Formats: sequence, structure tokens, C-alpha cells
Amino acid sequence: MVVIGGGFAGLWAVRALRELNVEIILIDRHNHHVFQPLLYQVATAGLAAPSIAAPLRHILRAQRNVTVLLGEVTGINLVQREVSMGDRTLGYDYLLVAAGAGHSYFGHDEWQTHAPGLKTLDDALQIRRRILTAFEFAEAEPDAVKQQQWLNFVVIGAGPTGVELAGTLSEIARHTLKREFRRIDPRHARITLIEAGPRVLAAFPPSLSARAQQQLEKLGVEVRTDCAVTAVNEGWLEAADQRIEARTILWAAGVKASSLGALLGAPLDRAGRVRVQPDLSIAGHPEVFVAGDLASVTADGRPVPGVAPAAKQMGAHVARMIRARFEGQPMLPFHYRDFGSLATIGRKAAVVDMAGFRLWGTGAWLLWLTAHIWFLIGFRNRLIVFIDWAWAYFSYQRSARIVID
Amino acid sequence: MVVIGGGFAGLWAVRALRELNVEIILIDRHNHHVFQPLLYQVATAGLAAPSIAAPLRHILRAQRNVTVLLGEVTGINLVQREVSMGDRTLGYDYLLVAAGAGHSYFGHDEWQTHAPGLKTLDDALQIRRRILTAFEFAEAEPDAVKQQQWLNFVVIGAGPTGVELAGTLSEIARHTLKREFRRIDPRHARITLIEAGPRVLAAFPPSLSARAQQQLEKLGVEVRTDCAVTAVNEGWLEAADQRIEARTILWAAGVKASSLGALLGAPLDRAGRVRVQPDLSIAGHPEVFVAGDLASVTADGRPVPGVAPAAKQMGAHVARMIRARFEGQPMLPFHYRDFGSLATIGRKAAVVDMAGFRLWGTGAWLLWLTAHIWFLIGFRNRLIVFIDWAWAYFSYQRSARIVID
Repeated sequence: MVVIGGGFAGLWAVRALRELNVEIILIDRHNHHVFQPLLYQVATAGLAAPSIAAPLRHILRAQRNVTVLLGEVTGINLVQREVSMGDRTLGYDYLLVAAGAGHSYFGHDEWQTHAPGLKTLDDALQIRRRILTAFEFAEAEPDAVKQQQWLNFVVIGAGPTGVELAGTLSEIARHTLKREFRRIDPRHARITLIEAGPRVLAAFPPSLSARAQQQLEKLGVEVRTDCAVTAVNEGWLEAADQRIEARTILWAAGVKASSLGALLGAPLDRAGRVRVQPDLSIAGHPEVFVAGDLASVTADGRPVPGVAPAAKQMGAHVARMIRARFEGQPMLPFHYRDFGSLATIGRKAAVVDMAGFRLWGTGAWLLWLTAHIWFLIGFRNRLIVFIDWAWAYFSYQRSARIVID
Repeated sequence: MVVIGGGFAGLWAVRALRELNVEIILIDRHNHHVFQPLLYQVATAGLAAPSIAAPLRHILRAQRNVTVLLGEVTGINLVQREVSMGDRTLGYDYLLVAAGAGHSYFGHDEWQTHAPGLKTLDDALQIRRRILTAFEFAEAEPDAVKQQQWLNFVVIGAGPTGVELAGTLSEIARHTLKREFRRIDPRHARITLIEAGPRVLAAFPPSLSARAQQQLEKLGVEVRTDCAVTAVNEGWLEAADQRIEARTILWAAGVKASSLGALLGAPLDRAGRVRVQPDLSIAGHPEVFVAGDLASVTADGRPVPGVAPAAKQMGAHVARMIRARFEGQPMLPFHYRDFGSLATIGRKAAVVDMAGFRLWGTGAWLLWLTAHIWFLIGFRNRLIVFIDWAWAYFSYQRSARIVID
């Protein structure tokens, strides 16, 4: 069996197959699994990159039926049942494609240079570098107008990542950097969160969206909804016919599935995700499964969201289906169990929606903290993140304010 | 006053001038101060980069007479008393040049691509990437001969950094990666430490050099002394007329002072270091000081070594001389207070030489650990490094095994 991608879907599938007598090859472009929900913390210098990642082969060291390979899949041959990595080919009986998603710039790929998105640790370190150096350039800039342009930050897209980035940026400007500059006042930083839709955190109930927006505004973030971006360039963007000058523009708006999905011959949705059968296999190829952000799934009549719990559940479902094949059992449709949604905004500010139970403010924030430490892989990472956060809470400091080229 | 470089010399000078009524501008190419003695731990995936670094402006936030500027010094005009950074110039009354040192390849700069050295966090992350991916390439390589080439590691230069790198590489191969690969046995890695001189750790007494070599060999490192490297290339090197095939070659041999030293018009030594007056100023320019690895100093008849304690002491001395100028006091020569030397080799293996008192093995290692945690800047970094090390000790694991492009 070949598994492409060591994210939540791929890793959870592999782990669930530990008892099965099957030889698994797990291929990933990186040597590590990343805990994506905390990527924004690395991007905003709150955590070191190694704190939210663990080497795949270390996680799977005791699972003797798995071989981890670092590399890039360049082709999939469904007829010959082979995956190619450059000039090397690997045969498979079962294939799970869980290659995830990147950013969509809605047909404007030229915006990417000016407004990087956040999907990998590389992205996170690039964004961290941009944020930290913006304040440095402002300090070095003698011209007041240009200085303010370095202090203007725009986040495009008010989903969970956009809200987290905007809220944390505001905390950095107002608290973390306080008293550290001599020529600028970091509190003059202007953080604007732009959303094309009518409200922030559209996946939450409207009442929590309103709470989230209140909390963002209390932190000093300027929220603009119903505001579509029409141009992004070096140092400025245009949204709702207005030009905004900002040296740091971050993209948290669109998702585009991995291009590996197109190699499967199955129908794709608008975001490039593979429309799978109810059991997560693809039509005509019961031995090929797709899971995670690359899969377009409707379960129980509702689209399954592109979040970590859904990816884990899909991975586990694929493992169950493969075990069922071995045992001659019938295929079953995937059911998504929605445990609710959490999104954080900043210090003591978050929203939680769990089975009708709604929470915001400090209580929601504590729940968010606990859940995220709980789900991190590895005892050491949990402890280090806990310490970093405790330290950040009392000191208002961020522990990874390091610019590396 | 302008200070170039926020390493030990520059930072210690700036901090010692906190009470003086002088406006200080501290210029550095990076936004952070690095605790250089632990760079090899970042390079060998034992610590995350932010654990051994702290933002300069955070360290100096409360010192109101300092402005920190991120940037590169491009010129120094001793006559007009100006430092230039691109098209910007800064005047000074006093200048401290503490720009440190990089690597010397002894006239073979083309070796650098094949054998990177370790002076900055960027270097450390590059070396970490090379080490970790070498094992990955070995796992993916079907040809046995090529596979072994990926498992061959050579460290050139058996000073403290070379010894630390070689010892830790051996631990990674023998312990950290044990059981994680399916096609290779990481214990088949061959680690060779090459030294042109007659013994390892030449700055220590011969008896401790012998102890260090014993400890290295016990860890599985092949030590070759009196072995000069004559060629370094992609995948192989030549030393003492022998060709060694190795995909990972690390350089810990030569030091070359920053090129800023040449702008001062003062005589340089062979390594490009500035020969300073006894008070650390340069001849004919009592307002210009040089300190740290860039300074070639003889104190009490002996050359001062390029180590962290010497750099700190020089920085503090420059601060004292500037205060003396303000108070009309005479200039004094720099005295180096040698507190002794420590070098670590690996788990429970180190050597210590302090005022005739010599120690090796577990005791020396514990002393090394304590000293290095003690001298780290910042309470949080100390705690995190302590936890990382405690965890590494019991688990044989390394917490930062993350490859980032």
C-alpha cells in the first residue's frame, strides 16, 4: 500500500493500519508531520518551528509495517497501479492520496509574491520574517509616510487563520514590541482584516461571528466585511474600490487542492478537490482512496469541512475500509462526526461552538488552549508549548522572534 | 557612539555603558544575538534556533540610550567619523567594531559549497538540513555503495566545534535514529574527524586532548590527526593522499575575520584580524575600538583566544575606556582573565581545564551543561534548553529534527 502525504489524513490512516499484515510506504515532501492548527503561532513568532512538528519516521518508528520516504510524487498510473517519484516507481495494491491543499489566489497567482499564504512551516517562517522585518524597516525609515506603510498590515480572508493572524499581529504591535523601538511607536501599527463575505468566521453561527468581530475590534483590528480584493501589488492593494498602502499583506482567503488530485481522472470540484464515492474511494477504482483536504466529500447530506478532525476521521475511515476488504466485509459510507469548532482571536479571546453550546471570551480561550495542547503530538512538544504559552501570558513576550534568512 | 555587531563583544560593551550619558547606535545584520557556543546543538537538531537566540532590541529594551538598527555596514570613514549603511550615513564620536569572524578555507573558497562552516543560525540550519537529509537519501538509495556514501560524514578541524559536531553525529547515528529506518541501519554511519595538527582540542593540555580522543573513539568517531586536507569536492575529499567518499562534509577548521577590519587602515594578522593597541583602540584613532573575534590582541604577553569569555571581557573593557575618556582618566591595557576551557564531546563526555584543575567524563560533562545553561540569555531560554536536554538525556531523542527548505 502507498500513502501519499503525512498530514492528519495520511498519518491517521497509517497508524490505524498498524495491526494489518500489509506493507505500507508513506511518502511526504517533508520529513515531518506538522500540527497545522498552530502554524499561525510559528508565523507570529510565538512558537519555534520544531515545537509544532515531529519527524514522521520518529512518530512511526515502532510500526514495523511502514517505510517512510522523503520525496515528491510526480505521477500516478492507475492502470499499472504505480506511483512514480522522478525516475523511480513504486507499485501498490491500495493507494491513499492525502496530499492536502495549498492556496488559491482565485486566478491571480501573481498576487502570491506580495501576499504569502500559510500552509507549511516554510510559509510560516517566511511570514514571520516579513512581520518582524516590517517593524525593523519602519524604525530605519526617516520618511514618516513610508514609515507608516511599513506599519500597515493587511490580512485577507477572515476564516480562522485570518482571524488568528490579525488578532496576534495586533497583540505584537500593542504589547510584545512596546518600548523596544526608539523612532517608531509600534502601537501605531494599523492591522486591517479584509473579508469578501458578510461576516468573519463564516463557518460559525452569526452570533459568534459578531462576538469574534467585537473581540477583534477591541484588540484594535480594523475589520472590513463585504469587501472584495481586486488587486494586490508590492506595497498596496485595492479592495472595494479603495487603495490601501501596506508593506505586509498576508493571504488567508482561498484554498486550492494539491495538483495530484488531477492525476486521478476523477471529477474535481471548483477548488480542485477530488469528488469521491461515499466510502472515499474514487469511481471505477475501489483500490484508490482520497482523504483530507484533497477530498470533496458530502456526508449525511452536508459537505465535510477542511479541518483537522475531518482529515483524521477520513484517514481512519480509509484504514477501516482497507481492513474490511481484507476481511471480505462490505464498504461503508464515511460519516463525519462534528465535535464543534474553535477559533482563537488573541489573549483571552476566542469563540467555541460545540453541539449548540456557545462560548466566547476567556472561557472559550482556555478551552482552545487546552484542546490544542492536548492534540499536539509528543509529550515534549506539549510541555514546551505549555511553557511557552505560560511565559507569553505573563510576560506578553513571544519566544521565537528570530529572523533567519 | 556607533557599535557594529551585536555578538558578545558588542552587546557586553553596550550593556556596560547603560549609565553613561551617550547615545549609542547598535548595528547588526541580524535581529538577534546568538549564543554561539550552542550553535552546534542547533546544527545537530538538539535545540530549536530560537532557544539559543534573543532579539537584540528585546535584550536592550530598557536601556534608553541605545537604538538598535538592523542592517549591513558598507563603509567606515575614519576621517569624517562616519559609518555608512548603503546610502545612509551615521556620524560617531566613538566607534566599536565588533563584527566577528567567518570561515577561512585557506585560499580554497570553492570548498565552501561542499563543506559548510558553522558561524550563524543560517549555517546551523543548513548543516541540520544536510545531516538529516543524508540519512533520508541513504534510505531511498537502492545501490549499496552509494548508500554508504550518504552514511559517511567527515568533520574537518578538531577544535571544540569539530569535536562537538563529530561526537553528536555519532550519537545521532547510534542512538537517536535507531529503529527508525527500514532499509538502512544508521549505526553503519561512519564519522571521521580530520585534523591537520598532531592532536584534537589543541588549546587544551595534551593529557586532556588524549582523553578527548579516547572519548570520541568510544563514541565510534574515527579520529585522524596529522592529516591535512588537500581537496574538497562534491561527495569526496582528499586528505593525506587518501580519497574519502562522503556526502556530508562539515568545515570547522579555519577562522577569517570580518572584512570590515580591512576598512580601518590598521595592520591585520594572517586571519585578517585587526592588530589593536593594548587598550583595544587602533593606532592613530583613539576613538575607534575593535573587540571580539575581529581583534588580534596580546595581553600579558599571550595571544587572547577567540572565545566567548574573551569577547565579553573585551567589550566590557572598551566600555570602561570610553567611561574613562569622559572622566579624563588614563587609558589602561586590556587584561584577559582566563577562567579555563570547557569542551563537550557527547553524552557524559567532556573535558574541562580550569586553572590547572583537569576533569573529563561525566563530571566534566555536568559542569559543561551547568555553565552553558547559566550563561544563556533569558530565563525562558534557560528553562527550555534545560527541559530539552533533560528530555534528550532520558529519551536519546533530539527535539528539532525538522528539515525546512
